[in-house]
Parts: sequence; structure tokens; C-alpha cells
Amino acid sequence: MAETHDAVAVIAAKRDGGELDDAQIDWVVDAYTRGVVADEQMSALAMAILLNGMTRREVARWTSAMIASGERMDFSSLSRPTADKHSTGGVGDKITLPLAPVVAACGVAVPQLSGRGLGHTGGTLDKLEAVPGWRAELSNAQMLDQLQDVGAVVCAAGAGLAPADRKLYALRDVTGTVEAVPLIASSIMSKKIAEGTGALVLDVKVGTGAFMKDVATARELAETMVALGTDAGVRTVALLTDMSTPLGLTAGNALEVAESVEVLAGGGPDDVVRLTVALAGEMLRAAGVDDVDPADRLRDGSAMDVWRRMLAAQGGDPDAPLPTSRETHVVAAPATGVLTRLDAMAVGVAAWRLGAGRARKEDRVQAAAGVRLHAKPGDRVTEGAPLLTLHTDEPERFPRALAALEGGLDVGDEAAATPLLIDRVAD
Amino acid sequence: MAETHDAVAVIAAKRDGGELDDAQIDWVVDAYTRGVVADEQMSALAMAILLNGMTRREVARWTSAMIASGERMDFSSLSRPTADKHSTGGVGDKITLPLAPVVAACGVAVPQLSGRGLGHTGGTLDKLEAVPGWRAELSNAQMLDQLQDVGAVVCAAGAGLAPADRKLYALRDVTGTVEAVPLIASSIMSKKIAEGTGALVLDVKVGTGAFMKDVATARELAETMVALGTDAGVRTVALLTDMSTPLGLTAGNALEVAESVEVLAGGGPDDVVRLTVALAGEMLRAAGVDDVDPADRLRDGSAMDVWRRMLAAQGGDPDAPLPTSRETHVVAAPATGVLTRLDAMAVGVAAWRLGAGRARKEDRVQAAAGVRLHAKPGDRVTEGAPLLTLHTDEPERFPRALAALEGGLDVGDEAAATPLLIDRVAD
Repeated sequence: MAETHDAVAVIAAKRDGGELDDAQIDWVVDAYTRGVVADEQMSALAMAILLNGMTRREVARWTSAMIASGERMDFSSLSRPTADKHSTGGVGDKITLPLAPVVAACGVAVPQLSGRGLGHTGGTLDKLEAVPGWRAELSNAQMLDQLQDVGAVVCAAGAGLAPADRKLYALRDVTGTVEAVPLIASSIMSKKIAEGTGALVLDVKVGTGAFMKDVATARELAETMVALGTDAGVRTVALLTDMSTPLGLTAGNALEVAESVEVLAGGGPDDVVRLTVALAGEMLRAAGVDDVDPADRLRDGSAMDVWRRMLAAQGGDPDAPLPTSRETHVVAAPATGVLTRLDAMAVGVAAWRLGAGRARKEDRVQAAAGVRLHAKPGDRVTEGAPLLTLHTDEPERFPRALAALEGGLDVGDEAAATPLLIDRVAD
Repeated sequence: MAETHDAVAVIAAKRDGGELDDAQIDWVVDAYTRGVVADEQMSALAMAILLNGMTRREVARWTSAMIASGERMDFSSLSRPTADKHSTGGVGDKITLPLAPVVAACGVAVPQLSGRGLGHTGGTLDKLEAVPGWRAELSNAQMLDQLQDVGAVVCAAGAGLAPADRKLYALRDVTGTVEAVPLIASSIMSKKIAEGTGALVLDVKVGTGAFMKDVATARELAETMVALGTDAGVRTVALLTDMSTPLGLTAGNALEVAESVEVLAGGGPDDVVRLTVALAGEMLRAAGVDDVDPADRLRDGSAMDVWRRMLAAQGGDPDAPLPTSRETHVVAAPATGVLTRLDAMAVGVAAWRLGAGRARKEDRVQAAAGVRLHAKPGDRVTEGAPLLTLHTDEPERFPRALAALEGGLDVGDEAAATPLLIDRVAD
């Protein structure tokens, strides 16, 4: 069958600064999914989009075309509203683990299709897989049942949602075109809209350990995604949050699960608790529930109860001991004073090199590998006292992890206060 | 073996407006030739180069890397200097046919590795293949012998010269990245430098029928190529010449051979003669020969003598009748007055659709197809009198050829004078 468009003409239009029309966008996304537009053509188009941008209309249409490439889920049969959260990825970002149970405990169902980590930020599925027995794979029917019964589910996205995005993301990864804001926004939002959530809160990370290094780019991404969600009928809000230092005191799969359990038990690091409560509040408001305080659900044990049922429903044993690493190495504070900087990227790369993350999709991760922090910026430290503990099963990994930490921390007189919540973006 | 560079890092450097260093350029061109850098990576890089440009140093290194991907020819054993000409392609551009013999008749050897046409401009090899018996393929030894004996050779470039360029050109063709000046310049110059000519004259076409539509872009390309040639030790000069209307009175393979023979016989259209003599003069000067007038060699029959020996050396019969088309269709002048415009692109596309050119590399061309002009801009025409004659073996091609000509000509009171020679660029 003759194609309705010509790939070179579509590429040339964007290359020359033009705006693609709806028919061109629908065709090129569909034809790429079918293999009619070749990888080398789509990568040239992606580079032209990265350098020449897209209008709000173009990004919305591109997102719709990616959604149309696959199936859409529908949770309208549930007896309660739905809300989901997406983070653009940070070091020590275990927020989904306490957040999904606490929101469910407040009466809003959380259907989170999640992914595995690549690079220096961990993936939520990798973290939950540190829980003995827990399985990420669910059928759509199992997911719906669990949402109805437990109120929260975190599971692997099936191959049916936005297959165009899966193919395009793999291409962008090897062609230097990941960094295009229209493509990042449409990649995230096509999956979240296809997932069928009624409300969505975006946690857009900013800082050295985040994909977005500056507030302006992060705000541009947040505004683009909020517009996409709103246009698609999903009540969408974004928070810009700091990622210059790790969240909480752990980076690594089992380490982060343990810290999340502390939060669900009413304790845990202050920043993790504050961000969990802030995001839960946004999710509840976006879902139309504004008479419940999520902090109460952490204190009264009801969030912990959902957490245990959520793990058990997917084969996980909430009482089983978490794996621990075979080897540890303590990094001592280099001086006495105030820890003025502990760089998120340095800690993230160290945890990755210890085995907590993967360099290629096919790599396996170590459940127990990672970094535990004994101090956060603003805390006093004493020369020679433990500052970080590195965990791994393979001690030959220590030297490269230590190299990643070099230059990643400063001890001085006074730490500048860095706000955790930077901004809020709504339509 | 581990690669010394990472394709994504090289792409990202150019994407972000940076300058690639020598090692990055050498690696990416070599690794692409070896298949280590994938097509989708090279097309993203090509788009980044198109949109962000390259410095003179980067283009020079890129060109060197493409030359290094294959063999280099060497004509230093010849008893006379060498000079070649390259045209960026135009409608009715048969100049190489009279030019190579006339320059050889002046004592400078012309080693022209040439190509076949794609799209609306014809290829020199396609034209010469209209001569019964003529063969484009020669070994390097045969080429050297013919240069020594006859003084002029036009033949197909072997696969050994700049194989990186062959692979990259095919990729650019399908990814909307043909239009990058650094890549056009390095593509042309890598082959011409590897070919081993001592001097080179570039005919950079400007106008509706040319690849470069405006003088500024054509000058940028000319300056880039002259710099590349000069840096590589090839004495290089460029002429910017008009391509708003066809050269001469024919567009099509056998039709252009016949017109070239008229020029070699001392006649022929004024513009073809003038451009031949101008380019020959530049080639002779660049080769250090300045005491011969090429126009004399057209008048005294010595250029014709080289032409006949040049054809015969490659199996061609200079006395055999040229093929003629089975069908013709006459286009009459629409009004009486002065032909004020006859668009090169319209005539080129018409000739192409009549069968003179190919849409895909694997297409065959018709030797006898094409367009004969009975008037040129500035000439008086009479309503109803023949203006163009279309030639083809397949009459079903006439309607689409006529459609290409629609809007391609105007008859009025006075034609604006368009100079044939627009500018000269030397280092």
C-alpha cells in the first residue's frame, strides 16, 4: 500500500523550522511503529525536534499518536477515584514506596505502572524486587483486582501501552536525542495517559543528580507535561523538587525499602516524609479528596497496613528480612565542621557502581548494594567519623565507587539552605 | 576491542553546539565505515551538523577522515599536469563532454571520476553511455594508461575511493540531511582529493534548477570547498554560475552528446561554449599552463580529435549514430513576444519524467529521452510555433512531463539579463 507521506519531507519540514501538521505526526509515529519509517530517519527527526522544538499543539498530537499506537487501560469501573505520581528520577528517590500506600489509605486508588532503573537513578521495580517473593508482572485483570481490593498497585508496564514510545525511547538512548523536552514530555505522558489514571502528580527533579540541571528547563518540562495531561482530561499538577543531594539517607534497592518502611511506621528521614506528604496531598486534591490528612495515615498505621497487603498481593513477604550486602566500606568525614554539600550525582554514581543500578538494560542489579548516609547537608560531622557506608556483594567495586565520590562533598562552616519544594506548576 | 570513543558523546557534543576534536572526527568516520557507529547514530549526528554547522578545521578533518577510509590515486608519474572539474549539478549541464577534451588538447591531463544522475539533473556517465559501445568502468591501470595516451578520461569512480562517503551519502539521502553544507563540501572534496588531481575547478550552480537556490549559500559552499582543496594541496578555484534556465538547448543524454559534438566542432550554443572556455581557462591556469587559448582548440579540431580518441579508448564509436527517441511531442509558444523565463527545474523535471533520469539508483535511463529547446530566455517567440520538443520512447510519459512544465515559462516584452558567470572564488 502506498504511504500517505514521505519520511524525508516530514524530517525536512521540522529541520527547516516548520510546524508538523496533525496528519504528518499521526503518520510518522504510526509508520515508525510499523517499521516503514526507519530508525535512521526517526533519529534525524528526533534531532531536528530537539534543536528546533515543537509547539504545544505538536507535542499534544505526538503524544496522542503514541497513545494510539497501543492499548489504553480503563479504571472507570473502580469504586474510588484514581491518582498516580511520576518522578523524573533522582538519587534515593523511594517516594513511591510510602506514597502509594498512604494515598490508598486515604481512599484514592493508585495504579502505578513503573519501570526499572538505567544509569545513576534507581527504578521503583528494582527497589520492590528487593522484597523476597515480590513480582512486578501482573495481567491487566490482576492489576484491576488489586486496585479494587488493596487500593494500590505498583507493577511493570506491559508491552501493550504506547509501543511507539518503547521503540522511540530505545532509539533516543543511543542517538543523543534523549534530552529533547517535547520527546521527554510525550514519552512520560503517553504512558501515563494510556495507563488510565484520573489524576496525575509529577515530581520534576532539579539539580546535579537529576536529569534537569536547572529550574528553567525543569519548569519548561513541567509546564509541557501539565498541559498534555490537562488536554487529555487527566487532572495534572507538577512539583519542582530539589535533587542536588540524595533524598533521605539511603540510595540502593533494599536500603531504600528499609527506609520506606521506617516512614510507613511513622518515622524516617524528614525530607522523605515531607515530600511523601506533599505529593500525597497533591494527589488527593487532584482526585477530589480534600478532607483527609495523609500524615495521619502514616501515624495511625493504616498506610503500613496497605503496604503489607500491597506486597503480599504480588507475592512479597513483608515480614521476610531484606537482603544485606556481603561487604561494606566506611567513608570517614574528611574534616570537622558542617557538611555543606553532598552531591546527588556523586552518590548516585557510587551506588550504581556498587551494583544498585545497571549500565545496560540486560544487566542484573544487586538488591543489597548501595550507599547509606550518616549525615546530610547542614549536619555537623567530625573528622574520621563515619560519613557514608558503601554496600556491595563484590568488594572489587569499591575503588570505582570511591572514585565517583571524589570531589562530591564539602565540609565547611555553614550550609546554604536548599528548599526541597522549589515550585508548583498547574494549568 | 574497546572503542576509543562513544557515539552518543560525539553526537551530544555537536548537538550542544560544540566543536568536535580531531580524534572524535577520525573515530566517528572510521567507526561508521566499520559499522560500529550505527546508521541511526550517524543520521542524528548529520542532522546536528546540518543545524549547528562545522568550523573550517572540523570540515577539513572530516574530509581527511573520509579520504583515509579508502584508497588514494596518484598521477605523479604522468608527463603532464592534471586538472579536474566538478559541477554541483544542473539541467543541461553537459560541460564535461567538450571540456575534458579541450583541456587535454591544451596539454593538461583530465582524470575525471564521475557519477550517474539521480533526480532532475543528469549524470555525466549517463550521457556518455548514450554513445554506442562506450563503457564507464576502467581499472586504475587502464585509467592511468588512457590519461598518458589520450590525456582525458571520464570513468566511474571505483568502490575504493572514500567508501565512508558512499555509505554516508546513501544515509543522508533518506534522512533529510543532504542539505548540510559541511557534508556536501566534504563529500565532493573527499572524492576529488582521493582521486589525486593536481588542480580542481568547481562549477557551483545557483538558481532554481540547482541544488543551491541562492548566491549566499552557493558562495558558502564554494568557499568551504576551495579551502578544503587548498588545505589538501590541490590548487582549487570555484566559479558560481547561473542555473535558473537550462544550459544550452538540450537536456537529456543523447541530445546533450550531440550538442557537445557541435561545440567540439566549433559551433554549438553560445552559453555552452562560453562556460566551457571559462572553465577550461581556470583549469589550465590552476595547472600552471597559461599560454594556450582553449577556444583555439575548439576551432582547430584538436579538441574534437581528443574527444574521438577518448571515446574509442573506452569502446565507444564516435561515428555511430546516436539513439533517437521513438516518440516526440511539440510544446508550442503560448504567445508572441520575448521568452522572459524558462525555468531550469521545470525542464529538468520534464526531462527526468520523460526517462532521461532516474528516481532510484537502480532505475535505468533512456538514452534518447529529454527536452530540446527551440528558444532561450531573451529570444523572440511566436504564438503556436514550436518552443520545446519532448523526446521519449514511452508516450505515456508525456502527460506528467507536460505537467512539470506548467508555470515554468513566461512570454513578455523584455527579458532581464541574467549573467552566466556570477562570481569566482579562490583562496
